[in-house]
Amino acid sequence: MNFGILAHKNYSILMQNRKKIFVTNDDGIHAHGLQVLIEEMKKLGDVLCIAPERTQSGMSHAITFSNPVSLEQHRDEPGIKSYSLTGTPVDCIKIALDRFYTNEKPDLIVSGINHGSNSSICAIYSGTVAAAREGGINNIPSIAFSSVNFEKNADFTHYSPYVYSISEKIITQGIPEYVFLNVNFPHTKNIKGTRVSHQAKGVWIERFERRTDPHDREYFWLTGNFKNFEPEAEDSDEWLLKEGFATITPLKIEKTDTESISKLSFLNS
Amino acid sequence: MNFGILAHKNYSILMQNRKKIFVTNDDGIHAHGLQVLIEEMKKLGDVLCIAPERTQSGMSHAITFSNPVSLEQHRDEPGIKSYSLTGTPVDCIKIALDRFYTNEKPDLIVSGINHGSNSSICAIYSGTVAAAREGGINNIPSIAFSSVNFEKNADFTHYSPYVYSISEKIITQGIPEYVFLNVNFPHTKNIKGTRVSHQAKGVWIERFERRTDPHDREYFWLTGNFKNFEPEAEDSDEWLLKEGFATITPLKIEKTDTESISKLSFLNS
Repeated sequence: MNFGILAHKNYSILMQNRKKIFVTNDDGIHAHGLQVLIEEMKKLGDVLCIAPERTQSGMSHAITFSNPVSLEQHRDEPGIKSYSLTGTPVDCIKIALDRFYTNEKPDLIVSGINHGSNSSICAIYSGTVAAAREGGINNIPSIAFSSVNFEKNADFTHYSPYVYSISEKIITQGIPEYVFLNVNFPHTKNIKGTRVSHQAKGVWIERFERRTDPHDREYFWLTGNFKNFEPEAEDSDEWLLKEGFATITPLKIEKTDTESISKLSFLNS
Repeated sequence: MNFGILAHKNYSILMQNRKKIFVTNDDGIHAHGLQVLIEEMKKLGDVLCIAPERTQSGMSHAITFSNPVSLEQHRDEPGIKSYSLTGTPVDCIKIALDRFYTNEKPDLIVSGINHGSNSSICAIYSGTVAAAREGGINNIPSIAFSSVNFEKNADFTHYSPYVYSISEKIITQGIPEYVFLNVNFPHTKNIKGTRVSHQAKGVWIERFERRTDPHDREYFWLTGNFKNFEPEAEDSDEWLLKEGFATITPLKIEKTDTESISKLSFLNS
């Protein structure tokens, strides 16, 4: 017998069984929320992190194709490699799939923990959520994590057990096709539990605040308030977050509304 | 009788009955496709156009809130006002709703005509399509127009009758809630007709082309190919476009997948 070869084989099998977990965010490579995510994911498998070099909040599902992008390595330790990318969160997913996971897709994509809520309609504007959506488009179980707490020095470590538990269950059980998870954490440290919820129906009512520069030219800052159309809905993410629950909303990626096809037949010509 | 007042009243009613149409795009204020759209829309009502100052292709549903934005007026004629904005297509919708349509929402939002196809999954990355989505979120009938022809000097004037006809029908008949239309035109000048279709199921397979700069640092250009998972589906936008039809795809804005809520109950804790 050749124990050398056997040992090598076993090692190889062991390595093959390690889960491959990809981590990104939209707050950038240095964000606290990203570090919390990496710490939990390394308990579950081999972590590759590619995160934007700078903040990409509000970048939604944007991609970079009019300029090139570049990578810089930050960490190279057993079980953790991390890089920054001069691109968007969705670029991070795309370059990971093309240049790092060349043989096999990752088992899980996680994005966040975002500094700021992505509940309800906010999900559509978020770069953090977009990264998970891009994972879903590629048929990879994907989860976006966000906290309603966007204080600069927020401490997210109390979310760790929830991040671990949700991720571990999803690696095992998977997610329905063309769906991804949008998880939001409440501000409180006394989280009551997790609830699979639906996103509250609502809209942002924008206000562009007008200012003038020193040369008397006007400019506008985007501000606004979220208007919740169903503030009493007890199974909505907005309601549950206010009650102190972490919410897990399965989002169906935008697609053809088959019901409308017959309703709109007057457009055929 | 005071004919002066009567005439004024009639004039006022006439003005009130004029439809209010908002126009934007992602190729920027100077794009040919935008001009074609404005020309058709002015036949249908009073046009306000706010378009990005520069190209915003691939910007998806991004918004600008870390920097301010500014407006510059380009046209001020009877029935047409146009401005450029130092922001994204979705910013254009938001500033229009906040600062221009202060009393009443527009009757129709149109975006495009995009220089390049936005069929199938491309819709999710497109700034042109995102503007229409933002209209849909605000419960305004909204249509994105794109052409598969992305040649620099492409002539889109042969699309005009279709742009007019689809827009006129939608102003009259409306669109189901939380749905917007994604229209794509084929390359040919001999368009066979219009078809309400579904988006072909597919994905972009990315390739990041590696290059090195003069200082031997590597960088990557995003390229890729569309992979159509259902090339034989005769009611898909991809198939119909190849056959020479203009396709009209009703897209349902991403939302909670209610079916998944019970399937994922193992995540409640």
